[in-house]
Amino acid sequence: MIQVNVTLTETIKVLLDEKKYNTLRDILVTMKPYDIAAVFEELQDEKLAILFRILPKELAAETFVEMDEETQEFLIHGFSDNELKEVVDELFIDDAVDIIEEMPANVVKRILRQADKDMRKQINELLKYPDDSAGSIMTTEFITLRRDMTAEMAIKRIRRTGVDKETIYTCYVLNDKGQLIGITTVKDLLLAEDDAPVADMMEENVIAVHTLDDQEQVAQMFSKYNFLALPVVDNEQRLVGIVTIDDAIDVIQEEATEDIEKMAAVLPSDKPYMKTSVLGIYRKRVPWLLILMLSATFTSMIISSFDSVLERVIVLSSFIPMITGSGGNAGSQASVSVIRALSLGEIEFKSIFKVIWKEFRVAILCGLTLAAANFIKLLLLDLRGHDNAFVIALVVSLTLVGTIIMAKIVGSSLPLLARKVGFDPAVMANPLISTVCDSLSLLIYFGVASALMHNVLYAMM
Amino acid sequence: MIQVNVTLTETIKVLLDEKKYNTLRDILVTMKPYDIAAVFEELQDEKLAILFRILPKELAAETFVEMDEETQEFLIHGFSDNELKEVVDELFIDDAVDIIEEMPANVVKRILRQADKDMRKQINELLKYPDDSAGSIMTTEFITLRRDMTAEMAIKRIRRTGVDKETIYTCYVLNDKGQLIGITTVKDLLLAEDDAPVADMMEENVIAVHTLDDQEQVAQMFSKYNFLALPVVDNEQRLVGIVTIDDAIDVIQEEATEDIEKMAAVLPSDKPYMKTSVLGIYRKRVPWLLILMLSATFTSMIISSFDSVLERVIVLSSFIPMITGSGGNAGSQASVSVIRALSLGEIEFKSIFKVIWKEFRVAILCGLTLAAANFIKLLLLDLRGHDNAFVIALVVSLTLVGTIIMAKIVGSSLPLLARKVGFDPAVMANPLISTVCDSLSLLIYFGVASALMHNVLYAMM
Repeated sequence: MIQVNVTLTETIKVLLDEKKYNTLRDILVTMKPYDIAAVFEELQDEKLAILFRILPKELAAETFVEMDEETQEFLIHGFSDNELKEVVDELFIDDAVDIIEEMPANVVKRILRQADKDMRKQINELLKYPDDSAGSIMTTEFITLRRDMTAEMAIKRIRRTGVDKETIYTCYVLNDKGQLIGITTVKDLLLAEDDAPVADMMEENVIAVHTLDDQEQVAQMFSKYNFLALPVVDNEQRLVGIVTIDDAIDVIQEEATEDIEKMAAVLPSDKPYMKTSVLGIYRKRVPWLLILMLSATFTSMIISSFDSVLERVIVLSSFIPMITGSGGNAGSQASVSVIRALSLGEIEFKSIFKVIWKEFRVAILCGLTLAAANFIKLLLLDLRGHDNAFVIALVVSLTLVGTIIMAKIVGSSLPLLARKVGFDPAVMANPLISTVCDSLSLLIYFGVASALMHNVLYAMM
Repeated sequence: MIQVNVTLTETIKVLLDEKKYNTLRDILVTMKPYDIAAVFEELQDEKLAILFRILPKELAAETFVEMDEETQEFLIHGFSDNELKEVVDELFIDDAVDIIEEMPANVVKRILRQADKDMRKQINELLKYPDDSAGSIMTTEFITLRRDMTAEMAIKRIRRTGVDKETIYTCYVLNDKGQLIGITTVKDLLLAEDDAPVADMMEENVIAVHTLDDQEQVAQMFSKYNFLALPVVDNEQRLVGIVTIDDAIDVIQEEATEDIEKMAAVLPSDKPYMKTSVLGIYRKRVPWLLILMLSATFTSMIISSFDSVLERVIVLSSFIPMITGSGGNAGSQASVSVIRALSLGEIEFKSIFKVIWKEFRVAILCGLTLAAANFIKLLLLDLRGHDNAFVIALVVSLTLVGTIIMAKIVGSSLPLLARKVGFDPAVMANPLISTVCDSLSLLIYFGVASALMHNVLYAMM
């Protein structure tokens, strides 16, 4: 039970320097591809090719798949055509496509030249599907059966053809036109009598996705239905590929990261944080910072237009961050709940009124709690001894109730509206919503202040 | 290819009212358990038991697993002991444990009474493991082999014993003491010669987890290593269970939701949004709202203590939301990047200085960009014609640079420090960080203003 850690990587570096290649090989073959790839990413460039050549062929290809694109590209540049062919031959089609999509054109050409004709054709087919579609993450290698086979024949067929297939455990039953008519599993085949016909044990109510379906929806189906693989069909219901569960997990992770990034006003990135350059991070972050800063012009304008109120009761300005902050927090609580529920397929646009009604009631409870706590705190602490303590505490507390109701309704309805008009709900989250909430909460604040403190403001004129 | 939609649920309701049970059964057997459970959750309570009794035994149990706990509990209350036994007998151990964990004590007793002795023992074992541990999500049903078996014997053994096992595709090779010495897959067994010994095809460098390991780490191993199942061992390295990939996917989804909720200052909840009551949502949200509101006392105090500055140059107050907002946004961008990288295992505490250095450089770039844009905008727009336009624009722009540098450093280092001292990094995210950033950015603002506007402030006295 080996797990990669710094010591092991250090050991490997030392052994490489000492050219103890046999020892290195002995160590590497006990390791998992993911962990070997992690070691590669710690090495200096000139050592990469040496270590790669030490790996047995199959393990080399499996490790190659796990590396980041810089390391892959660097290695490919150092490969002879023969070496490249050895790696390409061992790749599953969908992994090959993943790699190709990240490479510059000249590297892609070299890779395709090394692939055999059949593989090249399949790769080119897959490259045509749009990013984030089921077609772009599926593999074209799968086991097909016919309904008139027996369990024994089916198992023989799997044993004959299965060695290259990424997953053999789900088998697809096709008719003469290549249309998917049922699925069965190796488990069912193994547990059946030898002469039981496939037709009897196949599941005919197959859930399949279309090549152009969104990869996020496809991934959610895995968690709903506990599949190991999901068939992908074209317009004529012909089986053209399968999405395997390992790719679905990657999509689930990516989509969660993307949602989280968008909620924090970061443009989504497909690279790990530590591997993204400073300039890369800057480019992902500065657009939203700029947009949000400029949109804060509204809040400045609102405050400026009420500066006569502030000038007379300057203490009101000290509660602005608390009020906009509470509004922002309440709004993002609501928006994040709704966005996550949308991502997980738990709610749809048609529930918008149910959602708003729910958030309204939550907001009343939260608003009253906060207002009460705030009222007591202001009287006992912040405004103790202030001339207009009572009325100011009342203004601030009523503003809190109004702000939280407004924030929860804005926060929960904007993501749903975004989904309805085809925008990404996650982009509607914290940043955009808090700008809207900031402006509205200031308007509520000055509105309530003007109404309740008319006497105070008037008396001072 | 049936997919649940409103029309289908409506049809089922009508058929139920009309007592067309045979038709109903015909429809239900074509559906997936997840979708049938969705239909159940739309039904009135009194219809639940009727529809459940229509389902064939195995499908009934599979559907039962997919239901929410209220529906499960309601059904159990209506079951006779015999009916309950029929459902319990069909459950996988880990599913039974999941259900039991959510039920009140009297229901748990009834369920355990219906389980046969062996199952009851296994359930009780699993219930002992702490929440969120590998032990709590594993199943105790798996296929074991011995190293001296041949491929043919192994497959025979699987065919004989496999019918009850949740996954048969990964087989575990044990020694006499029950310790895990290797794994092999049905794929390898099928593709091997009949008389090939298991010892020759088993993988001996097995990655296993301990019963007490955290479920999140366990789930991450699935996405790293592309496993279908992961063995769980006790202190003596004996195999006590396996975690299957469908449970790992659920954990990945849950943990992502939990992270997102914490980032938005919501206490994590394990219920879907639409199924949580208003009071339930209130309880999850109000604690953080209160804490953050009270902590905003600091910002109020800072503003109050500088009210002489504000009174003299009231326009300064209009930029407070923009400055604290930009600081908050910049800080949460950094914190979210770091928190997600921590969750995915991409960074550790020891990288803290690398991270801070990276964020510092990003902050310089972001800060300068924002300051430049802001400076121009203030001069051309907001402060046009204002007496001290230039110096105020300078104060605000310099504050932005300082605020963004401070926010990025606070935002990136707090989650790492939290992880170091054993707190949850996600709790450190947006809400807590923005309170810290708000206070610090105000101090920067008034500090810069006092320094640069000394003449202005002095002249006006």
